[in-house]
Amino acid sequence: MLTYDLTKAKGPLYLFIYECIKKDVNNGILKADEKMPSKRLLAENLGVSTITVENAYEQLIGEGYLYSVEKKGYYVAKIRENQAGKKEEAQRRAILMPKEMPEDIYDFSANQTEPESFPFSVWAKLTRKVLASGKNELLAKSFSGGVRPLREAIAGHLSSFRGMSVAPDQIIVGAGTEYLYGMLVKLLGRDKTYCLATPGYGKTADIYESCDAKCVFIGMDEMGLRSDELESSGADIVHVSPTHHYPTGITMPVSRRYELLSWADSDKERYIIEDDYDSEFRLKGKPIPSLQSIDTRGRVIYLNTFSKSLSTTIRISYMVLPVELTERYYRDLGFYSCTVPTFEQYVLASFIDEGYFEKHINRMRLYYARKRKKIFEIIESIFSEDECFAVEHDTGLHFILKVNTKLSDRELEERLYKRKIRLQSLISFYREPVPDKHMFMLNYSGLDMEKLPQALEIVKKIAIEGESG
Amino acid sequence: MLTYDLTKAKGPLYLFIYECIKKDVNNGILKADEKMPSKRLLAENLGVSTITVENAYEQLIGEGYLYSVEKKGYYVAKIRENQAGKKEEAQRRAILMPKEMPEDIYDFSANQTEPESFPFSVWAKLTRKVLASGKNELLAKSFSGGVRPLREAIAGHLSSFRGMSVAPDQIIVGAGTEYLYGMLVKLLGRDKTYCLATPGYGKTADIYESCDAKCVFIGMDEMGLRSDELESSGADIVHVSPTHHYPTGITMPVSRRYELLSWADSDKERYIIEDDYDSEFRLKGKPIPSLQSIDTRGRVIYLNTFSKSLSTTIRISYMVLPVELTERYYRDLGFYSCTVPTFEQYVLASFIDEGYFEKHINRMRLYYARKRKKIFEIIESIFSEDECFAVEHDTGLHFILKVNTKLSDRELEERLYKRKIRLQSLISFYREPVPDKHMFMLNYSGLDMEKLPQALEIVKKIAIEGESG
Repeated sequence: MLTYDLTKAKGPLYLFIYECIKKDVNNGILKADEKMPSKRLLAENLGVSTITVENAYEQLIGEGYLYSVEKKGYYVAKIRENQAGKKEEAQRRAILMPKEMPEDIYDFSANQTEPESFPFSVWAKLTRKVLASGKNELLAKSFSGGVRPLREAIAGHLSSFRGMSVAPDQIIVGAGTEYLYGMLVKLLGRDKTYCLATPGYGKTADIYESCDAKCVFIGMDEMGLRSDELESSGADIVHVSPTHHYPTGITMPVSRRYELLSWADSDKERYIIEDDYDSEFRLKGKPIPSLQSIDTRGRVIYLNTFSKSLSTTIRISYMVLPVELTERYYRDLGFYSCTVPTFEQYVLASFIDEGYFEKHINRMRLYYARKRKKIFEIIESIFSEDECFAVEHDTGLHFILKVNTKLSDRELEERLYKRKIRLQSLISFYREPVPDKHMFMLNYSGLDMEKLPQALEIVKKIAIEGESG
Repeated sequence: MLTYDLTKAKGPLYLFIYECIKKDVNNGILKADEKMPSKRLLAENLGVSTITVENAYEQLIGEGYLYSVEKKGYYVAKIRENQAGKKEEAQRRAILMPKEMPEDIYDFSANQTEPESFPFSVWAKLTRKVLASGKNELLAKSFSGGVRPLREAIAGHLSSFRGMSVAPDQIIVGAGTEYLYGMLVKLLGRDKTYCLATPGYGKTADIYESCDAKCVFIGMDEMGLRSDELESSGADIVHVSPTHHYPTGITMPVSRRYELLSWADSDKERYIIEDDYDSEFRLKGKPIPSLQSIDTRGRVIYLNTFSKSLSTTIRISYMVLPVELTERYYRDLGFYSCTVPTFEQYVLASFIDEGYFEKHINRMRLYYARKRKKIFEIIESIFSEDECFAVEHDTGLHFILKVNTKLSDRELEERLYKRKIRLQSLISFYREPVPDKHMFMLNYSGLDMEKLPQALEIVKKIAIEGESG
């Protein structure tokens, strides 16, 4: 008869008995198909209640260490010779995690938003309101494309702010633009060829390529992506940011836009993906019409994000699909759940509907215009125009800094990094090797103004005055 | 000289002038490369300030309708013959949206959670607290795998609740299990063969297939997925839910678990994906150790979600990767941003750290145990055991209802649907055609108890008493 020393039990007795039997099964002390004592007998033997043994047996049965045969009793299950018994526990070794950039680096190319600019109190108020409403819809399974009120709010925003007329049904909400790129590859097919500009935002290509989609790259002229090379590139899909190209800052003129549309128009499987990521921040004049709004043939997929316009922490983006693709989306991918939490969707919908988003944009636009101006002033106060100047485009949250250095771009980058400054050369954004341009990225949305003069002085010392860093 | 009737202007004058010139360029009234009047001249002619014309010109240049030549003046840009000019505006046709299930359907297979069960007030309190903290980290770009405090909280939970010892660095947080499946295909490769059980949760296969990954299906016996068929199936990756298989409810015994591990162990590119989606709701005994916790060779990828344990609306899931795959993840996919909003991650971290999650689980477990018992009682009060009974497994949020009907399963489904009841036959969960089993899915987590007796009465009338529906 099985006997265990119950004085060693630290927790519930049934667990202790369960552990003892399990150990005996694993060690082969209890053999496969051996009959176990009845619950009553074992209970008497151990001096515990039958319920205690019953609980232990049930757990052992649940885990497959014992099995029961009706009207006969309990038996030991056959446990295969296994990893645990035969091999030593693998040593857990230290995980090689990616190095995060040290926090004390002054990063000219970081594209975060400023924490202070996020309308915390309003957001908190609306969150409270939405949660307090305790609506059942908050917890209902969300529709694949996003909750209706948010899609309506976005359609309204696009109409008043971008002059775009889209049906809420054409809008698909997702947790970030990167996620939506992935969905687009599923929707359009990974057998298609995706065309991107070089130079460009490297992550976009990384994402397409991580989805195993074929990418081709074509160059740019002063009007943006060279549309005359599209035909020979074999592209099916072209990905552009006509409002404000990253990193060059070029705004694509209307004539080039129509060239893209003509190209897309000539084959029913050609599409243009228009990523309008910081269009809210055109700082002069009124926003330029989107490609989507001048497209009459359903060739343009429009994307935008609230991560830029509201805060980096908000993971809500959306795409506007042409009618045909909307239907294809719901047919082929409609089983996907929406990746954005339902109540955050409601909070954002209120934020837009109650006018806070427009106010926020207007406030931020003014704020950024002043910040930009101030940065130009600081640059001018430190450098002569021959040494360094900002290549201006009146839009968006970054611009290019031309630095007349005698160093190679890489050399300058490295010397500055040693001085805890990250300044990224434009050549990093090209797919192909290109000669030095002495042009550098300046993302100013999250730039610390207080430390800017000091950082630029260091740039001057190293880039212009030849200090060795 | 250009002349426009400014009395027709409704908004700012510069916008009106801009619109007029744009129209003339589009219509060909202003020809490509034609010289425009100087700002001063046009201003005089229209009787407006030079600034007004300047603003209009700037907008036109920004959009590419005009171009300027230094020291010479402004010229009309060449706009290609285009869509807009040549073709009629495409008619926007109605979008064929997927039919949503009518709200008045009593759905036995819906897998939502009950809205009332969500701890609204605590969640709201923590959200307020996190937002009020206004920490900069809230708005910092989030680390690809999720914020550290959440990963630590999850590791702690897994240790105390599941007896799993994992490093926070092995945990990757994402917006839903579906999203993580997609990332796994990217990580492991879509050239791999993914093996799933039939019957099974159809959506899992849909997701793998929408990622163009090859799926194979193998059958089950009473211990779960037939491990003896794995070798010949050509599988590289096997996807299982050993704690509680959907839809059969089978808990995989330890011996079968070790068989899976042995299979995976024999090739370094073989992995087991363990989806532990409702393991928190084992209603008797203590939870069964996960496959991950008995794996000593780094072959198991563990997944779980808060959408089941907390609320359907929360889109936070996570996976625990073996050390080697963690490193591969950060090397190949670390450029992806985390899809879960940063501050929601902090709220969940507090929710776990402050003990609310454990309390919630314990409360819900009791609640579900009672609900389940009550459902069994109602079934027994309406049906004799010959007519209908619940196939019991003491775990999770669904079980199988055996209905001894003379109708075919499809016929019963259809007749019930006409009576606004959705009862899904087990045969729907098979990939291959199978004979009727008269077994039906009963998901009870979100089931409306008040209407249950009435719904079961209708099932009885149609399934047993042969009413035509």
